[in-house]
Amino acid sequence: MAKYAVGVDFGTLSARAVVVEIGTGREAGSAAIDYPHGVMERFLPDGTKLGVGWALQVPEDYRECLAGTVRLAMEQAGADPADVVGLGIDVTSNTMLPLDRDGCPLCEKEEFVSNPYAYIMLWKHHAAQAYAEKMLRLARERGERFLGRYGNGISAEWMMPKLWQIAEEAPEVYAAADRFLEVGDWLVLQMTGSLAKSESMAGYKALWSREDGYPSEAFLGALHPSLRTAASDRLRGELFPLGSCAGYLLPEMAGKMGLLPGTAVAVANIDAHVSLPGIGLTEPGVLLMIIGTSTCHIMLGETEQPVFGICGVVRDGVVPGTYGYEAGQSCCGDHFKWLMENAVPSEVEKEAEARGMNLHALLTEKAARLKPGESGLLALDWWNGNRSVLMDMDLSGLILGMTLQTRPEEIYRALIEATAFGMRRILEGFEENGLPVRHILACGGISKKNPLFMQIYADVSGREIRIGRSAQTPALGSAMFGAVAAGKKNGGYDSIREAAAEMGGTDPDPVVPDPEAHAVYEELYQEYLKLHDWFGRGGNDVMKHLKALRRQMVDRKLR
Amino acid sequence: MAKYAVGVDFGTLSARAVVVEIGTGREAGSAAIDYPHGVMERFLPDGTKLGVGWALQVPEDYRECLAGTVRLAMEQAGADPADVVGLGIDVTSNTMLPLDRDGCPLCEKEEFVSNPYAYIMLWKHHAAQAYAEKMLRLARERGERFLGRYGNGISAEWMMPKLWQIAEEAPEVYAAADRFLEVGDWLVLQMTGSLAKSESMAGYKALWSREDGYPSEAFLGALHPSLRTAASDRLRGELFPLGSCAGYLLPEMAGKMGLLPGTAVAVANIDAHVSLPGIGLTEPGVLLMIIGTSTCHIMLGETEQPVFGICGVVRDGVVPGTYGYEAGQSCCGDHFKWLMENAVPSEVEKEAEARGMNLHALLTEKAARLKPGESGLLALDWWNGNRSVLMDMDLSGLILGMTLQTRPEEIYRALIEATAFGMRRILEGFEENGLPVRHILACGGISKKNPLFMQIYADVSGREIRIGRSAQTPALGSAMFGAVAAGKKNGGYDSIREAAAEMGGTDPDPVVPDPEAHAVYEELYQEYLKLHDWFGRGGNDVMKHLKALRRQMVDRKLR
Repeated sequence: MAKYAVGVDFGTLSARAVVVEIGTGREAGSAAIDYPHGVMERFLPDGTKLGVGWALQVPEDYRECLAGTVRLAMEQAGADPADVVGLGIDVTSNTMLPLDRDGCPLCEKEEFVSNPYAYIMLWKHHAAQAYAEKMLRLARERGERFLGRYGNGISAEWMMPKLWQIAEEAPEVYAAADRFLEVGDWLVLQMTGSLAKSESMAGYKALWSREDGYPSEAFLGALHPSLRTAASDRLRGELFPLGSCAGYLLPEMAGKMGLLPGTAVAVANIDAHVSLPGIGLTEPGVLLMIIGTSTCHIMLGETEQPVFGICGVVRDGVVPGTYGYEAGQSCCGDHFKWLMENAVPSEVEKEAEARGMNLHALLTEKAARLKPGESGLLALDWWNGNRSVLMDMDLSGLILGMTLQTRPEEIYRALIEATAFGMRRILEGFEENGLPVRHILACGGISKKNPLFMQIYADVSGREIRIGRSAQTPALGSAMFGAVAAGKKNGGYDSIREAAAEMGGTDPDPVVPDPEAHAVYEELYQEYLKLHDWFGRGGNDVMKHLKALRRQMVDRKLR
Repeated sequence: MAKYAVGVDFGTLSARAVVVEIGTGREAGSAAIDYPHGVMERFLPDGTKLGVGWALQVPEDYRECLAGTVRLAMEQAGADPADVVGLGIDVTSNTMLPLDRDGCPLCEKEEFVSNPYAYIMLWKHHAAQAYAEKMLRLARERGERFLGRYGNGISAEWMMPKLWQIAEEAPEVYAAADRFLEVGDWLVLQMTGSLAKSESMAGYKALWSREDGYPSEAFLGALHPSLRTAASDRLRGELFPLGSCAGYLLPEMAGKMGLLPGTAVAVANIDAHVSLPGIGLTEPGVLLMIIGTSTCHIMLGETEQPVFGICGVVRDGVVPGTYGYEAGQSCCGDHFKWLMENAVPSEVEKEAEARGMNLHALLTEKAARLKPGESGLLALDWWNGNRSVLMDMDLSGLILGMTLQTRPEEIYRALIEATAFGMRRILEGFEENGLPVRHILACGGISKKNPLFMQIYADVSGREIRIGRSAQTPALGSAMFGAVAAGKKNGGYDSIREAAAEMGGTDPDPVVPDPEAHAVYEELYQEYLKLHDWFGRGGNDVMKHLKALRRQMVDRKLR
């Protein structure tokens, strides 16, 4: 009789659940649901306007999608809930919300419905950039030791800048909040009634480490008086390592999800990280790109290296027994979503309709006919800032080389190429810092759906790329952690390595670089680097100046 | 009994004729027709592929539009052909074609139908950039005196680089050509049977001056052996000053145009230049912008100044008794045509349809709600190269500052702003070189149709701008030259100044800059200048590198 594990992957725009067979990794059922409110960047549901760089979400969307996707995936699998040994979830992290004493999100309370600071701040909420910069200056002045683990940078996406923004700009929300939790930890609390916070999330995103804990009261207090005790009050709660069992499904939630009460639930994981076991490779030297809305790069190392401006590193943070380095590009698929919504002409739309294709497929087909260098375009992949290498959310997008002959598919291709150049810069950052990359792997929606994209990545990097077998690698990885939470004696596994070896894997054939294309991309990459460094390292601060001016003008209008 | 003059303005995409009352400038009738083949940038009519930067036209389109627009405008005016005293035409210049011994365009001959070099090369044919650069190097090495009149630069748009390209790449066309003529001179030849070439066109576009004639045989021969005698063979023909009578309408053409044989025809003029009398101001210190597909800047000076990289200067070239400086932006309205065709989403199109507006009107309405600086965008207005200040057709467009929140109307506004910054840079170039600008005037389609555009120009420059009264200023100016060709004794005028004083003029109220907007644009302009100089003056040659790579890849495909 087959046993199953359930994994749920909460991305930026939707949640996906899979029901997976233990031992083989076969997907018996899967389902995806978009968050009803999506990402709120301009208005709250009641019409309250948001400032520049905001990105909020509604907690109820997560509850609904958790129950809905698992129920649908179980129905599709036709599996007996009694055969489900455990469940794991992964969530975008740095995605956090304030709760009252009863675990109720503040935004669900009458008095905070119109208060943007009371909602979920999504990872890509970038309005805390100024706090991140001040925090970094102060940490450097004080010689704070934690900086070494984060490439000497602090991202505006992380927990502390967001907390500081709330404490400073919305003291009423900070005061009313009993805690701030990662949405992943909050969902585990909803399912099990236990607060079992994820070490990995705290390690990568809240400046926490096993040795030193959170930053000191002296440091936090220097940011803002209210933050002084944040570690012991607003962020309190026991932290658990990867693969721990957080608790067991409560009856009410189990009912909504179509599972049995008492099913083991794993501690929440970071969405990108769970993909590594999902893909079956867990040894040092592996670089995994999880390519979706944004791209996350997970690199496993044998040693702890300071990698400037690249990432965070957490011991045992991704796979026990290795150092897990995380880097990332804050914008990947989002570039194309933006392009579709803002800059693809109706002529192309009509052609797609007439041929019964979706827009991406048509533009990909047209872009695939171009040779590298033929468009004459070069772009910087910073529509959503730069999260690694430059670690600056106030950088912005650039396209260069337009002529009156430039066509939509050329822009489409230039954006793919820009993300590939950004990826290569990160890869070289690892290697320059003593972390040789022996295998490149990819997973995530784009890696399975768009062969042109992956070919360009291989051509730009000049490396073979292996692609995860599952179209749902993160959800599969989460299911594995669910199986580990259950343990071998209950039909699961005792370690994530065992689970990965049996259930994970890649497609048989890697994507192989074309030497001629690689040679042209080599030239273009050198040009990319010049622009990258000039705009990103202070040669010309125009992007930051423009963002500051934009904020000023929008604020003037809101007032 | 009213007397009339007829003017025909041949733009990049269409021709416009007006029938104007002598003495008042009242437009009695007007008509416009698009060239049936438009601009050929990718293919000849028979499907022959064109290379990168090509822009060709079909001569028959000009004949058809000449006859058609005049006939329609006369019908609308209801004027008696006997009351038409004269006719003038203006044409984009640097728009040239090869003819056989009988004045027949080579492309109309069987053996050249598939030969791109036998067609009209439009002013914006940019495939001769490499020849322009080699020519400039050589002219500098040899210390050629003519360079001083052209701001020490040579544009790929001019006659000589195009001739060189043909001699080099299509010797069969060069050999078969009895002459190369400006299309304006060719149309005058068609109408009158006389070859009466325009001094002004030769002066601004073919390195000719009254004192020195064309460049020497030694110089031309150093470019290419076939070019050595070009001045005395391929470019031969008497040159006439502005306002001269070229001859009289031949019966056949008069019949097609609805005019009487024997009507006086003026020597052809450059499209931009005729606007100055059309607007009624002809004294030194006037800067006129003719804003259309591209923008031409005409500045009248009392003295001849070397203005580096700005323009050409020709004594009596625009208004007798002044030095006429010409500068320009190779791309203005074309940016928006490109945007409409390549980067405006169907959502905006649907909204425009639902509201019964055209796309430009809708985007203008949305863009007008933005404050300066609010978009966070900055662009370089080089989609079609840079014709003044940098004089480099291998520069290309740039947009910077995109985020996931960037909307189509923000890009639309950023492009308007970019053209305004480009205009200001040219204006400052004149003033830095001892040519104070006392009045700014504007005419051309955009100046009459888009108040936001003109407000941004006033805000960016911090100057008042007066707008030509007529929506057809160039055609009106051409009609005045027609009246001058006829002379006072035949019901016309003896000088263009007299004609301008009676028939030209501006709208009563100027566009006035807003000080708050000007202050923000001052900041943005400084950022524009940094990008302008870095990408345009060798700080980073990426644009030229990309264009070279693009040519290489396209050539590889064509082969």
